[in-house]
Amino acid sequence: MMKDFFKVEDIDAVCALRTQFPVVEVEAAPLASVAGRILAETVAADLDIPGFARSTMDGYALQAATTFGASESNPGYVAVVGSVAMGERPEVRIGPGEAVRIATGGMLPPGADAVVMIEHTETLDEATIEVYKSVAPGQHVVAKGEDIAVGDKLLVRGQPVRPQEAGLLAALGRETVQVYRKPRIGIVSTGDEVVPVSAVPGPGQIRDVNSTTLAAMARVAGGQPRDYGIINDNAEQLKIACARALGENDMILVSGGSSVGMRDFTIEAFKAQPASEIMVHGVSISPGKPTILARSGDKPMWGIPGHVTSAMVVFRVLVAPFITHLGGLGEGSQRSFGIPARLARNLSSAQGRVDFVRVRLEERTDALYAEPLLGKSGLINTMVKADGLVRIAADAEGLDKGDLVTVELF
Amino acid sequence: MMKDFFKVEDIDAVCALRTQFPVVEVEAAPLASVAGRILAETVAADLDIPGFARSTMDGYALQAATTFGASESNPGYVAVVGSVAMGERPEVRIGPGEAVRIATGGMLPPGADAVVMIEHTETLDEATIEVYKSVAPGQHVVAKGEDIAVGDKLLVRGQPVRPQEAGLLAALGRETVQVYRKPRIGIVSTGDEVVPVSAVPGPGQIRDVNSTTLAAMARVAGGQPRDYGIINDNAEQLKIACARALGENDMILVSGGSSVGMRDFTIEAFKAQPASEIMVHGVSISPGKPTILARSGDKPMWGIPGHVTSAMVVFRVLVAPFITHLGGLGEGSQRSFGIPARLARNLSSAQGRVDFVRVRLEERTDALYAEPLLGKSGLINTMVKADGLVRIAADAEGLDKGDLVTVELF
Repeated sequence: MMKDFFKVEDIDAVCALRTQFPVVEVEAAPLASVAGRILAETVAADLDIPGFARSTMDGYALQAATTFGASESNPGYVAVVGSVAMGERPEVRIGPGEAVRIATGGMLPPGADAVVMIEHTETLDEATIEVYKSVAPGQHVVAKGEDIAVGDKLLVRGQPVRPQEAGLLAALGRETVQVYRKPRIGIVSTGDEVVPVSAVPGPGQIRDVNSTTLAAMARVAGGQPRDYGIINDNAEQLKIACARALGENDMILVSGGSSVGMRDFTIEAFKAQPASEIMVHGVSISPGKPTILARSGDKPMWGIPGHVTSAMVVFRVLVAPFITHLGGLGEGSQRSFGIPARLARNLSSAQGRVDFVRVRLEERTDALYAEPLLGKSGLINTMVKADGLVRIAADAEGLDKGDLVTVELF
Repeated sequence: MMKDFFKVEDIDAVCALRTQFPVVEVEAAPLASVAGRILAETVAADLDIPGFARSTMDGYALQAATTFGASESNPGYVAVVGSVAMGERPEVRIGPGEAVRIATGGMLPPGADAVVMIEHTETLDEATIEVYKSVAPGQHVVAKGEDIAVGDKLLVRGQPVRPQEAGLLAALGRETVQVYRKPRIGIVSTGDEVVPVSAVPGPGQIRDVNSTTLAAMARVAGGQPRDYGIINDNAEQLKIACARALGENDMILVSGGSSVGMRDFTIEAFKAQPASEIMVHGVSISPGKPTILARSGDKPMWGIPGHVTSAMVVFRVLVAPFITHLGGLGEGSQRSFGIPARLARNLSSAQGRVDFVRVRLEERTDALYAEPLLGKSGLINTMVKADGLVRIAADAEGLDKGDLVTVELF
C-alpha cells in the first residue's frame, strides 16, 4: 500500500539527507566567467601583494626622519633628487634630507620609508621643496606583502566567487580556476489538466506555470535546468520521462501530483528507476506537505506539489539546499542573512508543522513591517506581490502582530 | 586648468545625474530566459486564472448545503453520480444530495459550489458515501478568476523579473516578453604599472585586478561588460581606447588614475570625445573621492580610482545605479533591503563626506554584529573578508560601538 510511505518527516531531517548525495565533478573556468561559481580548490598566495612597498598618495618618498619637526610655521627643506616612473624600479637611493617625486602606486626607492603628500609641500625650485608636515615611518605606504603575503590561505574550496574573489584570483595571475560544474536539474511537469504555455487552455485546463518557475529558481540556486515538458497522468509515460531525465541530469524534479492518484504515479515512476529508494513521503511543512524525496543510485528525485506557491516554498526550503550541496557550496561558506521586520498582523499556525507565510515588506515610520499576503496556495499572484517568506516554527501556535520575524527574501 | 573642475559633489547629487541619460532600447526575450531581466512592458491579464472553479483538495464536489448538519456522530449520506476527469469539463450537473469524485485541480461541475475532503468521508458502496463534516459554499475551491481576473494590471514596466514573475508570464501564455536590452559597459584599465593577469609582475608592477572585478560587478548590476584591456599612461592611447569603447557600448568605465597625472589624462581623453562634458570631478565619498563623471552625447563616461577597494565602493554606490537606470529598472521597482546589525567597535569619520566601511557580519548570542575590516584602501583582501558596507553619513563624526547600522551586502 502506498499509504505506508506517508510518514511525515520534519524539514531539518529532510534537508540533512542531502549529504548522502555526492558533489558534482570539477571543471576549469576561465577567469572572466568565474564570478558566480563555486570554487573547487583552496587558493593560497604564491606571491606577495603588493610585491614592493607602494605609495598610496601623490607626493615625495623620503626617510620619515627627514620630516621630523616640520610644521606650517617651521617647514623642512628637502632636496629633490629625481622622480619614480610608474611600473619601474627606482634606481636612486634616498639619503637623509633627500626625496623623490612619486605618484600614487609608485614603488618606493631604497632608503625611503614614507611618503609626504604633495599638499603638504611647496616647490621652491627644481631641486628643493619645503615640507610642512612630519610623517611617520610607513605613512602613506603599503608595505610589500601587506595586502597578501606568500603562503596566506586566501580562499577555500566550496566558497562562492563574488566579484572581489574574482579580483583576488586576477591578482594571483589565475587565468583559469577550478570550480564545480553546475548541477544539471531535469524538470518534468505532470497533470492531465496541464497544457503548454503556447496552448490556449480549454475548460478544466491550466497552462504549465511550474516548468518556467522552477527552472528559473534552479538557475538562481546555481543549477543548470533542463525542461522535459509535460507528462500526462500516465504511470508508464512518467517512468520513461524520469528515466530519460535521470540519465541526463544530476537530480530530477517532478512537479504536479497534489492529488493522491498523481502522487501514486510519481512514487511508482520513482520506484521503477534503477537502485531506487523512497526516502521521504510527506514533510511537516505548509504549504508543501505531500512532497516526495527518492533516490536512484546517487541521484535525488523530487516529487513536489503542483500548486505553484507550494512548489516554490518546497523548492526554496528543501530543493535549493540540495542543489547548492550537489554544486559544491561549503556548509561554512553560506553567508545568507534574513531581513528582520515587525509582523503587521496576527498569524495562526497549526502546531507540529513549519508554516511558511508569504509577506511583503513595508517601510513605515517606526519600523520595517512584514505584511502577510494571505490566499489559497495555488495563487501565483501572491508570490508576485511578496518579497519573501516568514517561517513559523513547528512548536508555535502562531505569531502576534508586532512580533519580530526574519524575512527570507526571494 | 584641470583643477577648476575639482568641485567635490555629494553622492546624491551625482546619483541623480543618471536620469539625464536615456534608457537602452527594448528587445524580445523568450520566456525561458526572461528571469533576471527588467520588464519593458506593462502586463495585464487577458484571461481569468484559473479559468474555472477548481478543487484544492482530493474529495467530492457537491452543494455545500448537502453537508449542512453533517458530523462524526451524525454523518450525511450522499449519492456519488460520477467523477471528474482532470483537464476536462464535467458533463454531469450536481443536484441536492449528489456528489462527484474530484481530484486536486479538477474543475467543479455545474451545480457544485464546494468540495468535501476525502478524509471526511467514508465509502459505503459504489454509489454512496457518508460525509462526516459540513463545508461552507466555496470551501476547498478556488473560484474562477480568484488568482487573476481579466484586466488585472499584474506587472509594470521597469520591474525585475523573478522566478514568480516568469511563472505569471507563463500562466498568461507569453512565449516572448519585452525586456530592456542589457546595457553594454566598456571597461578600460590604465596605468604604466598595471600588467595583464597573464604576466608576471616585475619590480614596481601589479596585475590588472580591476578589469576582472568591475566586469563581474557590471554583470551583477545587470550590464554586459566588455574588456578593452590595459592602456598605459598615454593620453593619445587613452583617447583612442575611449573612442572605440564609446562606439561599442552604452557607458564606459576607465579605472586607474588615482594619481594627479593619470586623472589629468583621463579628463583629457574624456574631453576629446564628441559632445563631451565633464559633469563631476570629485565626489564627497571615502574611499573614492577622485571620481570623474563625464558624458559624450548621451553616454556616461566614468573615471574611477585604481585602488580596487575604492573602485568597488564607487561602483557600488554610483556606477551600479547608472547601470540599472540605463537598463530600465524603475525607481519604484527597486526592492532592496539592508541588513541591520550592531557595530562591533567605534568608527571615526571626517564630516563633510560619506564614509563607506567594509564589515563582516558575525552572529553573536545577543545580536548580529558588524565588525569593521580596517585596512588601507588598496587591499583586496579586506573586500574578500567583507560581507558588505556600512555608510557613515556626511554630517556624522563617526559611529559608536553598539550603534545600529545597516549593512548593504555585496
